[in-house]
Amino acid sequence: MTLVERTILGIDPGLANTGWGIVAQRGPHLTCRAYGCVSTSKDAPLAQRLHKIHEQMAAVVARFEPSCAGIETVWFGANVQSAFATGQARGAALVACADRGLEVLEFSPSQIKLAVVGTGSAEKDQVQYMVRQLLALDDVPRPDHAADALAAAICYTTHEGFAQRTGAACVAYDSPNSGKDLR
Amino acid sequence: MTLVERTILGIDPGLANTGWGIVAQRGPHLTCRAYGCVSTSKDAPLAQRLHKIHEQMAAVVARFEPSCAGIETVWFGANVQSAFATGQARGAALVACADRGLEVLEFSPSQIKLAVVGTGSAEKDQVQYMVRQLLALDDVPRPDHAADALAAAICYTTHEGFAQRTGAACVAYDSPNSGKDLR
Repeated sequence: MTLVERTILGIDPGLANTGWGIVAQRGPHLTCRAYGCVSTSKDAPLAQRLHKIHEQMAAVVARFEPSCAGIETVWFGANVQSAFATGQARGAALVACADRGLEVLEFSPSQIKLAVVGTGSAEKDQVQYMVRQLLALDDVPRPDHAADALAAAICYTTHEGFAQRTGAACVAYDSPNSGKDLR
Repeated sequence: MTLVERTILGIDPGLANTGWGIVAQRGPHLTCRAYGCVSTSKDAPLAQRLHKIHEQMAAVVARFEPSCAGIETVWFGANVQSAFATGQARGAALVACADRGLEVLEFSPSQIKLAVVGTGSAEKDQVQYMVRQLLALDDVPRPDHAADALAAAICYTTHEGFAQRTGAACVAYDSPNSGKDLR
């Protein structure tokens, strides 16, 4: 039996903040390689904000060379404005993945909670706590968008039925783009 | 007084169909250079659909080198799913513009109708008729998405107060990407 070895990008897209996280999987072992958040100013023109999201996500993809990506499908209730804004950010981020041919899978919030915590109705802080545990991080990743992105990446590793996971040590490192690079 | 000379891209974004149109402006004279529509299959993965929109819109921008773009701001009512889907397509299309530094302006449907027909409450077929007249086209551009995109480009030319416009003859030409290239 050969071990699955791959690098997974997790994305939590938003126009103001797009979280991202890189998880390396070697069989049941998960390691956090890096995480961060692309923030854009409300005062910048829309096209510039989308350009920044695309450019920085493309830089993340080029640097860490993930083969696949996990992204959350969000439920917006009746908030049309929020759906439209997040949709635009999501489009900009996904283009960065698709340009490199990544396989992108979408997960519902409950799928991600189930994969990370073991129950689809987990609270946000439980998800963050388990992201830290599963990836053996010293602290909960900040901002929350980065933690949510790592949760989506972890969910990707389980969708083919990996039940056992152990964290591996990683070294904190400050990257540009206000992210954490743990390689 | 120097004449404004510029090439304007109009966009009517949608996940299934993204219309585009290129209008060349020389002072009060408008010419249609090309128009078309990027269509994506419902059966294709989302990332591939967004990739196609981005890739083909980037090809349009690279080929015709517009300096600016006009895009319609859509009102979705309570349709959250539609807002999210269109948002993603819009993000993919706008990234193609922003990558090249185009100035992008957003117009409301009534602004576009006012600019093209002279009244903000015009019907769709009136807009299409006037797009044909203003650009001196032999026929109404098809599909509707392309006509709507050309209307957004025409609106761009008026936002600085160009009142007089005359069309100029152009030659139909079949381009790849199921578009019309009129250069």
